Amino acid sequence: MGEARERFASEQEYLHVAEARGTLPEGFTSATTALSFTPAERPTEEPYRMELGMLCADAATESWAGVFTRNAFPGAPVRIARRRLGKPLRALVVNNRIANVCTAHGEQDAATIAERAAGELGCSAEEVLTVSTGIIGWRLPVEEISAALPGLVQSRAGGSALSFAKAIMTTDAFPKVRSVPCGEGSIVGVAKGAGMIEPNMATMLAFLTTDVDIDNAVLGRALTEASERTFNRISVDGDQSTSDMVLAVSSRRAGPCGEEELTRALTAICGELAEDIVRNGEGTAHVIRVEVAGARSEAEAAALGKAVINSPLVKTAIFGNDPNVGRIVAAVGDFAGNAEIPIDSGTVSVYLGNEVVFSDGVFLLDKEKEIRLSDYLKSKAMNPRLRGYPQHDEIVEMRIELGSGSGRAHVIGSDLSNEYVHENADYRS
Amino acid sequence: MGEARERFASEQEYLHVAEARGTLPEGFTSATTALSFTPAERPTEEPYRMELGMLCADAATESWAGVFTRNAFPGAPVRIARRRLGKPLRALVVNNRIANVCTAHGEQDAATIAERAAGELGCSAEEVLTVSTGIIGWRLPVEEISAALPGLVQSRAGGSALSFAKAIMTTDAFPKVRSVPCGEGSIVGVAKGAGMIEPNMATMLAFLTTDVDIDNAVLGRALTEASERTFNRISVDGDQSTSDMVLAVSSRRAGPCGEEELTRALTAICGELAEDIVRNGEGTAHVIRVEVAGARSEAEAAALGKAVINSPLVKTAIFGNDPNVGRIVAAVGDFAGNAEIPIDSGTVSVYLGNEVVFSDGVFLLDKEKEIRLSDYLKSKAMNPRLRGYPQHDEIVEMRIELGSGSGRAHVIGSDLSNEYVHENADYRS
Repeated sequence: MGEARERFASEQEYLHVAEARGTLPEGFTSATTALSFTPAERPTEEPYRMELGMLCADAATESWAGVFTRNAFPGAPVRIARRRLGKPLRALVVNNRIANVCTAHGEQDAATIAERAAGELGCSAEEVLTVSTGIIGWRLPVEEISAALPGLVQSRAGGSALSFAKAIMTTDAFPKVRSVPCGEGSIVGVAKGAGMIEPNMATMLAFLTTDVDIDNAVLGRALTEASERTFNRISVDGDQSTSDMVLAVSSRRAGPCGEEELTRALTAICGELAEDIVRNGEGTAHVIRVEVAGARSEAEAAALGKAVINSPLVKTAIFGNDPNVGRIVAAVGDFAGNAEIPIDSGTVSVYLGNEVVFSDGVFLLDKEKEIRLSDYLKSKAMNPRLRGYPQHDEIVEMRIELGSGSGRAHVIGSDLSNEYVHENADYRS
Repeated sequence: MGEARERFASEQEYLHVAEARGTLPEGFTSATTALSFTPAERPTEEPYRMELGMLCADAATESWAGVFTRNAFPGAPVRIARRRLGKPLRALVVNNRIANVCTAHGEQDAATIAERAAGELGCSAEEVLTVSTGIIGWRLPVEEISAALPGLVQSRAGGSALSFAKAIMTTDAFPKVRSVPCGEGSIVGVAKGAGMIEPNMATMLAFLTTDVDIDNAVLGRALTEASERTFNRISVDGDQSTSDMVLAVSSRRAGPCGEEELTRALTAICGELAEDIVRNGEGTAHVIRVEVAGARSEAEAAALGKAVINSPLVKTAIFGNDPNVGRIVAAVGDFAGNAEIPIDSGTVSVYLGNEVVFSDGVFLLDKEKEIRLSDYLKSKAMNPRLRGYPQHDEIVEMRIELGSGSGRAHVIGSDLSNEYVHENADYRS
């Protein structure tokens, strides 16, 4: 995940790189447009702006796969997409601003939009999926979206999906676009996600396109495995959304590729997109990687890592460049004690950066180490107010060795800043 | 819990009430003092101020009980107190600022302090317990504490424990003191806790004194039951500390009392203290009660309530007086989906205040309701910057009916404000 550390000096510099990365594989086009509407439920009459994006295969394909939220109240697009797996897919219509979740006519609204889009594309309505993200509880503006569809369909073009990556953003700080080679073709992916990011697909959308000739069973297995170790191992705030999905679609225009190579390539690109999502979390100043080793299983290692990364006290300390490592150890003990995981503090070691801060049941801290650790945190910080591009991809590294087994996993998360609270206290205003 | 809503117009008004409430039962004294020290681990030379408090029985008593953190890495005072249960107890020495957790000589440091205090009191060192709260990972200033003990012991007095309640504060906004009648005597309690509050005793201290004539087995059972439904049902930030404990001590100077009456009285006072702790959470602007009904068990209802109250997205919305109820429903679905609890959204109803916002799988929102809900949230808000006293004890009420059983529970938590982040980003500076 992001092994070469990058630095961007400006939004222009970043967008230039992202544009080049985003060149769609053979057999795909994308398009974007915007519209204005006033939600019936909104207390004021002020209109909202909504972006629409379309990702379209030149011909319907059965080679696509999806991984979906585990939230018990999934939105209409998730319900519909799950039912369609295995059937031909031609296009995705994605809107931001309003998530189509638990409203009275949610599935009908999605069907209406798919039907209108299919009419413009000249395909079956069953070959079009809608994807929605945004406010939960309000209704989609079906008429306004429908009116924008002819223009959207007509403006489709090959080339870079950067504009599409921008259109699907909600509170994202920057568009996320990645590409990796795979066999004789490539995989190009975009993702959206900012707040509410947690394992298991939380308010996160990712769309992966490839021209590799692969069938949908293999693509499904590879996507599930890649997602489990990437998107399901990140966390910004511990919430999981009703609308998350990762879709991978192949045009099969390039040569074939083995399952192992496909899985490796998908894991690489999903890992990069997952780290991008954490880095652009609402108000994120530090990206944190917690590596847990010596657990009884990989699942236990991942769960413990998430408990640490989700601790608001750990997150706020890191935000303040305060190496308050007592909070890391307390979070480990909290999780272990309450999950009834037998951990002996005498076998636990904790590292921040390259410094050991806890070993043999005892903290190892002194004035000089505290200063070095604070400098270390400062060197990894971004300015959360500087939006539009990632300033760098430095990571705060924590390592927790439990000494009770061979299970290991790493999770990636972010700190908790005033900006996060500010943004989420008035998200709908 | 806090049924009569109170309002305080000033710190003076609150302290006047708290002073009267805090009159210790027969057979107890308290004392406080302060000292200055520079932690060896601190990057700067600036001294810290530490408060010391003593709670003392006139004679050693075997009638005392404790409930302790479930954190797997408990501090030295928790380890020692657990071992002492059932043996005579004379006095508690409580310090704030530094938690005595996982340092090289933690138990020895506690023993040294207990020995010096016992020397001054003329009792056995085994009859004195130390209690510590504050920064995890740094060492207690044993010499400075020891030097302050003679003055502390000499200044003991009966009357109100309000000064003691103030001395044990860390980032608390106001001292917490409550009393209830019990049999022919009373129970008087003080508590400390602000950030890091979570079920199962997280960075929370509570000391309950009573003169009711009760043995320690009955007191232990009653305290465990009372804590389970009060302190273990609150959450400010989901973290649990290494140092939490609730201790109840009886001087047995008044008449006896049945177990049922004792349990009821302890549950009442622990409930009031628990709500006080949430209300004075770092940066708390709203206290929120989530009532869950229709779960398959009480434990499931409590767990789901905590998942909702711990959602940063729910918390930040409430802070902003934004009735973004989609986030409540998403948190329910998130918990149910990931804990594999079978919940049919069609049987779920969600209420905010007296308004139904979700029923039969569908949100019930309109412009007028959104305005009423926002006004409701505003009417329950406190100014988190106005510290020193609780402005009122209004509560935001959420009710979630699952329709899948008869289990019910309520949990109490707080919103998440910029103040919380600010306070925790530089707690040690």
